[in-house]
Amino acid sequence: MPDHLSSTFAALSDPTRRAILARLSQGELSVKELAEPFSITAPSMTKHLKVLERAGLIRRSRIAQRRPCHLESAPLREVAEWIEQYRRSWEHNMNRLDKYLGQLEAEGGKKHARRKKH
Amino acid sequence: MPDHLSSTFAALSDPTRRAILARLSQGELSVKELAEPFSITAPSMTKHLKVLERAGLIRRSRIAQRRPCHLESAPLREVAEWIEQYRRSWEHNMNRLDKYLGQLEAEGGKKHARRKKH
Repeated sequence: MPDHLSSTFAALSDPTRRAILARLSQGELSVKELAEPFSITAPSMTKHLKVLERAGLIRRSRIAQRRPCHLESAPLREVAEWIEQYRRSWEHNMNRLDKYLGQLEAEGGKKHARRKKH
Repeated sequence: MPDHLSSTFAALSDPTRRAILARLSQGELSVKELAEPFSITAPSMTKHLKVLERAGLIRRSRIAQRRPCHLESAPLREVAEWIEQYRRSWEHNMNRLDKYLGQLEAEGGKKHARRKKH
Protein backbone atom coordinates (compact mmCIF):
# COMPACT_ATOMS: atom_id res chain seq x y z
CA MET A 1 0.00 0.00 0.00
CA PRO A 2 1.76 3.20 -1.12
CA ASP A 3 1.82 6.20 1.23
CA HIS A 4 -0.40 9.20 0.57
CA LEU A 5 2.23 11.48 -0.96
CA SER A 6 3.51 8.70 -3.25
CA SER A 7 -0.01 8.08 -4.62
CA THR A 8 -0.45 11.82 -5.24
CA PHE A 9 2.86 12.12 -7.11
CA ALA A 10 2.11 8.97 -9.17
CA ALA A 11 -1.33 10.37 -10.10
CA LEU A 12 0.28 13.67 -11.16
CA SER A 13 2.91 11.95 -13.35
CA ASP A 14 0.64 11.93 -16.41
CA PRO A 15 -0.14 14.96 -18.63
CA THR A 16 -3.76 13.87 -19.29
CA ARG A 17 -4.46 13.55 -15.57
CA ARG A 18 -2.93 16.98 -14.93
CA ALA A 19 -5.09 18.43 -17.73
CA ILE A 20 -8.18 16.85 -16.11
CA LEU A 21 -7.33 18.57 -12.80
CA ALA A 22 -6.77 21.90 -14.58
CA ARG A 23 -10.24 21.67 -16.17
CA LEU A 24 -11.87 20.74 -12.85
CA SER A 25 -10.20 23.70 -11.13
CA GLN A 26 -12.66 25.86 -13.14
CA GLY A 27 -15.67 23.98 -11.73
CA GLU A 28 -17.39 20.57 -11.59
CA LEU A 29 -17.95 18.62 -14.81
CA SER A 30 -19.62 15.35 -15.79
CA VAL A 31 -17.37 12.57 -17.11
CA LYS A 32 -18.78 13.17 -20.60
CA GLU A 33 -18.01 16.92 -20.44
CA LEU A 34 -14.55 16.19 -19.02
CA ALA A 35 -13.70 13.73 -21.82
CA GLU A 36 -14.67 16.09 -24.69
CA PRO A 37 -11.31 17.84 -25.36
CA PHE A 38 -9.28 14.62 -25.01
CA SER A 39 -8.79 12.24 -27.92
CA ILE A 40 -8.72 9.15 -25.72
CA THR A 41 -11.05 6.15 -25.43
CA ALA A 42 -13.73 5.98 -22.75
CA PRO A 43 -12.02 3.08 -20.89
CA SER A 44 -8.76 5.03 -20.84
CA MET A 45 -10.60 8.09 -19.43
CA THR A 46 -12.25 5.91 -16.76
CA LYS A 47 -8.83 4.54 -15.80
CA HIS A 48 -7.36 8.04 -15.42
CA LEU A 49 -10.33 9.14 -13.28
CA LYS A 50 -9.92 6.07 -11.05
CA VAL A 51 -6.24 6.87 -10.45
CA LEU A 52 -7.16 10.47 -9.54
CA GLU A 53 -10.04 9.32 -7.31
CA ARG A 54 -7.87 6.77 -5.45
CA ALA A 55 -5.26 9.50 -4.83
CA GLY A 56 -8.05 11.69 -3.38
CA LEU A 57 -7.51 14.35 -6.07
CA ILE A 58 -11.07 14.16 -7.39
CA ARG A 59 -14.41 13.15 -5.91
CA ARG A 60 -17.53 12.05 -7.78
CA SER A 61 -20.78 13.35 -6.39
CA ARG A 62 -23.23 10.54 -5.49
CA ILE A 63 -26.37 12.67 -5.46
CA ALA A 64 -27.09 13.79 -9.02
CA GLN A 65 -27.59 11.18 -11.76
CA ARG A 66 -24.84 12.73 -13.89
CA ARG A 67 -22.43 12.25 -10.96
CA PRO A 68 -20.20 15.28 -11.66
CA CYS A 69 -16.48 15.25 -10.78
CA HIS A 70 -15.02 17.77 -8.33
CA LEU A 71 -11.43 18.76 -7.71
CA GLU A 72 -10.18 17.93 -4.21
CA SER A 73 -7.30 20.25 -3.47
CA ALA A 74 -6.11 18.86 -0.11
CA PRO A 75 -3.49 16.47 -1.63
CA LEU A 76 -2.15 19.35 -3.76
CA ARG A 77 -1.71 21.43 -0.62
CA GLU A 78 0.30 18.53 0.89
CA VAL A 79 2.59 18.55 -2.18
CA ALA A 80 3.04 22.33 -1.85
CA GLU A 81 3.96 21.91 1.84
CA TRP A 82 6.39 19.08 1.04
CA ILE A 83 8.14 21.11 -1.66
CA GLU A 84 8.60 24.15 0.61
CA GLN A 85 11.56 22.46 2.34
CA TYR A 86 13.48 22.79 -0.96
CA ARG A 87 12.65 26.46 -1.60
CA ARG A 88 15.89 27.57 0.04
CA SER A 89 17.87 25.30 -2.35
CA TRP A 90 16.46 26.75 -5.55
CA GLU A 91 16.46 30.34 -4.28
CA HIS A 92 20.13 29.88 -3.41
CA ASN A 93 20.78 28.59 -6.95
CA MET A 94 18.81 31.46 -8.51
CA ASN A 95 20.81 34.01 -6.50
CA ARG A 96 24.05 32.36 -7.64
CA LEU A 97 22.86 32.53 -11.26
CA ASP A 98 21.85 36.19 -10.87
CA LYS A 99 25.27 37.00 -9.44
CA TYR A 100 26.99 35.20 -12.33
CA LEU A 101 24.85 37.00 -14.95
CA GLY A 102 25.56 40.29 -13.18
CA GLN A 103 29.31 39.59 -13.41
CA LEU A 104 29.04 38.73 -17.12
CA GLU A 105 27.13 41.95 -17.73
CA ALA A 106 29.68 44.03 -15.79
CA GLU A 107 32.56 42.43 -17.74
CA GLY A 108 30.71 43.02 -21.03
CA GLY A 109 30.21 46.66 -20.03
CA LYS A 110 33.91 47.10 -19.28
CA LYS A 111 34.90 45.55 -22.63
CA HIS A 112 32.40 47.76 -24.39
CA ALA A 113 33.81 50.85 -22.61
CA ARG A 114 37.37 49.84 -23.59
CA ARG A 115 36.34 49.37 -27.19
CA LYS A 116 34.73 52.82 -27.26
CA LYS A 117 37.87 54.43 -25.84
CA HIS A 118 40.12 53.07 -28.61
CA MET B 1 9.30 10.09 -24.16
CA PRO B 2 7.52 11.52 -21.12
CA ASP B 3 7.43 15.30 -20.63
CA HIS B 4 9.66 16.96 -18.06
CA LEU B 5 7.04 17.48 -15.35
CA SER B 6 5.76 13.89 -15.70
CA SER B 7 9.27 12.48 -15.18
CA THR B 8 9.71 14.67 -12.10
CA PHE B 9 6.41 13.56 -10.57
CA ALA B 10 7.16 9.88 -11.35
CA ALA B 11 10.58 10.21 -9.70
CA LEU B 12 8.98 11.78 -6.61
CA SER B 13 6.36 9.01 -6.29
CA ASP B 14 8.62 6.83 -4.14
CA PRO B 15 9.41 7.40 -0.43
CA THR B 16 13.02 6.16 -0.74
CA ARG B 17 13.73 8.56 -3.59
CA ARG B 18 12.18 11.45 -1.62
CA ALA B 19 14.35 10.49 1.39
CA ILE B 20 17.44 10.53 -0.87
CA LEU B 21 16.59 14.08 -1.98
CA ALA B 22 16.03 15.17 1.64
CA ARG B 23 19.50 13.87 2.59
CA LEU B 24 21.12 15.58 -0.42
CA SER B 25 19.46 18.90 0.47
CA GLN B 26 21.91 18.99 3.41
CA GLY B 27 24.94 18.68 1.10
CA GLU B 28 26.65 16.38 -1.41
CA LEU B 29 27.21 12.70 -0.53
CA SER B 30 28.87 9.70 -2.16
CA VAL B 31 26.61 6.82 -3.20
CA LYS B 32 28.03 4.76 -0.31
CA GLU B 33 27.25 7.50 2.24
CA LEU B 34 23.81 8.00 0.71
CA ALA B 35 22.95 4.28 0.94
CA GLU B 36 23.92 3.92 4.63
CA PRO B 37 20.56 4.67 6.34
CA PHE B 38 18.52 2.66 3.81
CA SER B 39 18.04 -1.09 4.18
CA ILE B 40 17.97 -1.72 0.44
CA THR B 41 20.30 -3.63 -1.88
CA ALA B 42 23.01 -1.86 -3.89
CA PRO B 43 21.31 -2.59 -7.26
CA SER B 44 18.04 -1.18 -5.92
CA MET B 45 19.86 1.97 -4.74
CA THR B 46 21.51 2.34 -8.17
CA LYS B 47 18.10 2.05 -9.83
CA HIS B 48 16.62 4.80 -7.61
CA LEU B 49 19.59 7.09 -8.34
CA LYS B 50 19.19 6.50 -12.08
CA VAL B 51 15.50 7.50 -11.92
CA LEU B 52 16.42 10.68 -10.02
CA GLU B 53 19.28 11.45 -12.41
CA ARG B 54 17.12 10.97 -15.53
CA ALA B 55 14.52 13.34 -14.03
CA GLY B 56 17.29 15.90 -13.50
CA LEU B 57 16.76 15.88 -9.71
CA ILE B 58 20.32 14.82 -8.93
CA ARG B 59 23.66 15.16 -10.69
CA ARG B 60 26.77 13.07 -10.15
CA SER B 61 30.02 14.95 -10.22
CA ARG B 62 32.47 13.65 -12.85
CA ILE B 63 35.59 15.19 -11.35
CA ALA B 64 36.31 13.43 -8.05
CA GLN B 65 36.82 9.67 -8.01
CA ARG B 66 34.09 9.23 -5.40
CA ARG B 67 31.66 10.96 -7.78
CA PRO B 68 29.45 12.58 -5.12
CA CYS B 69 25.74 13.18 -5.75
CA HIS B 70 24.26 16.70 -5.70
CA LEU B 71 20.68 17.83 -5.44
CA GLU B 72 19.43 19.73 -8.49
CA SER B 73 16.55 21.89 -7.36
CA ALA B 74 15.36 23.30 -10.72
CA PRO B 75 12.75 20.52 -11.34
CA LEU B 76 11.40 21.04 -7.80
CA ARG B 77 10.94 24.73 -8.55
CA GLU B 78 8.95 23.75 -11.66
CA VAL B 79 6.68 21.59 -9.49
CA ALA B 80 6.22 24.48 -7.04
CA GLU B 81 5.29 26.79 -9.94
CA TRP B 82 2.86 24.23 -11.38
CA ILE B 83 1.12 23.76 -8.03
CA GLU B 84 0.65 27.51 -7.49
CA GLN B 85 -2.32 27.55 -9.91
CA TYR B 86 -4.23 25.44 -7.35
CA ARG B 87 -3.42 27.58 -4.30
CA ARG B 88 -6.66 29.52 -4.69
CA SER B 89 -8.64 26.22 -4.61
CA TRP B 90 -7.23 24.99 -1.31
CA GLU B 91 -7.26 28.41 0.32
CA HIS B 92 -10.93 28.71 -0.65
CA ASN B 93 -11.58 25.28 0.94
CA MET B 94 -9.66 26.23 4.08
CA ASN B 95 -11.70 29.44 4.42
CA ARG B 96 -14.92 27.45 4.02
CA LEU B 97 -13.78 25.02 6.73
CA ASP B 98 -12.83 27.91 9.06
CA LYS B 99 -16.26 29.48 8.52
CA TYR B 100 -17.99 26.16 9.27
CA LEU B 101 -15.93 25.58 12.45
CA GLY B 102 -16.70 29.17 13.50
CA GLN B 103 -20.41 28.49 13.07
CA LEU B 104 -20.20 25.25 15.09
CA GLU B 105 -18.39 27.12 17.85
CA ALA B 106 -20.98 29.94 17.86
CA GLU B 107 -23.84 27.41 18.02
CA GLY B 108 -22.11 25.53 20.82
CA GLY B 109 -21.71 28.82 22.71
CA LYS B 110 -25.44 29.60 22.37
CA LYS B 111 -26.44 26.13 23.61
CA HIS B 112 -24.09 26.48 26.56
CA ALA B 113 -25.57 29.93 27.38
CA ARG B 114 -29.15 28.54 27.21
CA ARG B 115 -28.22 25.62 29.48
CA LYS B 116 -26.75 28.04 32.03
CA LYS B 117 -29.93 30.15 32.02
CA HIS B 118 -32.24 27.23 32.99
